[in-house]
Amino acid sequence: MNFCSQCGKPTHYRVPDGDNRERHVCDHCDTIHYQNPRIIAGCIPTSGDRVLLCKRAIEPRRGYWTLPAGFLENGETILQGALRECHEEAGAQLNTPSLCGIYDIPHISQVYVFYQGPLSNDDFRAGDESLEVELFQEREVPWEALAFPVITLALEHYFADRQATSSGVRSATVSRRLR
Amino acid sequence: MNFCSQCGKPTHYRVPDGDNRERHVCDHCDTIHYQNPRIIAGCIPTSGDRVLLCKRAIEPRRGYWTLPAGFLENGETILQGALRECHEEAGAQLNTPSLCGIYDIPHISQVYVFYQGPLSNDDFRAGDESLEVELFQEREVPWEALAFPVITLALEHYFADRQATSSGVRSATVSRRLR
Repeated sequence: MNFCSQCGKPTHYRVPDGDNRERHVCDHCDTIHYQNPRIIAGCIPTSGDRVLLCKRAIEPRRGYWTLPAGFLENGETILQGALRECHEEAGAQLNTPSLCGIYDIPHISQVYVFYQGPLSNDDFRAGDESLEVELFQEREVPWEALAFPVITLALEHYFADRQATSSGVRSATVSRRLR
Repeated sequence: MNFCSQCGKPTHYRVPDGDNRERHVCDHCDTIHYQNPRIIAGCIPTSGDRVLLCKRAIEPRRGYWTLPAGFLENGETILQGALRECHEEAGAQLNTPSLCGIYDIPHISQVYVFYQGPLSNDDFRAGDESLEVELFQEREVPWEALAFPVITLALEHYFADRQATSSGVRSATVSRRLR
């Protein structure tokens, strides 16, 4: 940030009065521009013992596999965002989605929240941001070609928890490449 | 947003190419300024059958009671943010905090995430943003003087779930005043 989005004058990066962190501050109109972590809403779509993955058609990590997920938009609930991404990226719809994981990635100021649920039907297809969409059993998952560490972790947790009688919500911090 | 924070030129509010939502767009440097929901990290500090509440010293809702909570900062995990707010607002520390609730408030583009845990000791005090800090049993909670609907909901869920053998994670959407 170089300029104040309110008044257009140059901003300064300093600790405002009464604060203890550096912020982008406008000394002309006194606006403090806070910057906060972003939420990525995602899905783990399932069909029997398989999960739906998308091969990314866009950077970063084009050609690598991911779960349907994307930035939460203003005015949405996390579930609405997760289902929207599932529809946009995989043309898929879920039945009875349930919250299953929340993952902090502090070094890039992101928080992923995943819902899991069975596909409503077999009607899925690659959206604009996907090259392919495919169902994988646990042993078929392209573990070495997953797009991001958080995707690896969410899938590991999903497969580990699938047997459990009560499905809890996982939470973890992702700080490095996992595999 | 009136001006581009990158180059200082006026922005326009329109749907960018390849998008389907209006954004603040700079036609001078081609920056698209995305705006996303913010996370509020909070705690439910407990001591036996009592919970710790703070009377707000700041607007909005000055003089009303709340749980320690505040905007998550870049570079923090949600748990770190929740514990920081608990320390800042109530001078309190928690043992073994566990994730207990995620609440969407889409009409103001906020997501609250709460951790619960017992106070480490009886050493708590009002921080700069609190007028008072006090422990309340369920029947003593000032239900009519709580600051925000999400606080009411989180406390209702906490007291309802306290008896349960396995403590799950609540998720809900807050769309209106609850009481």
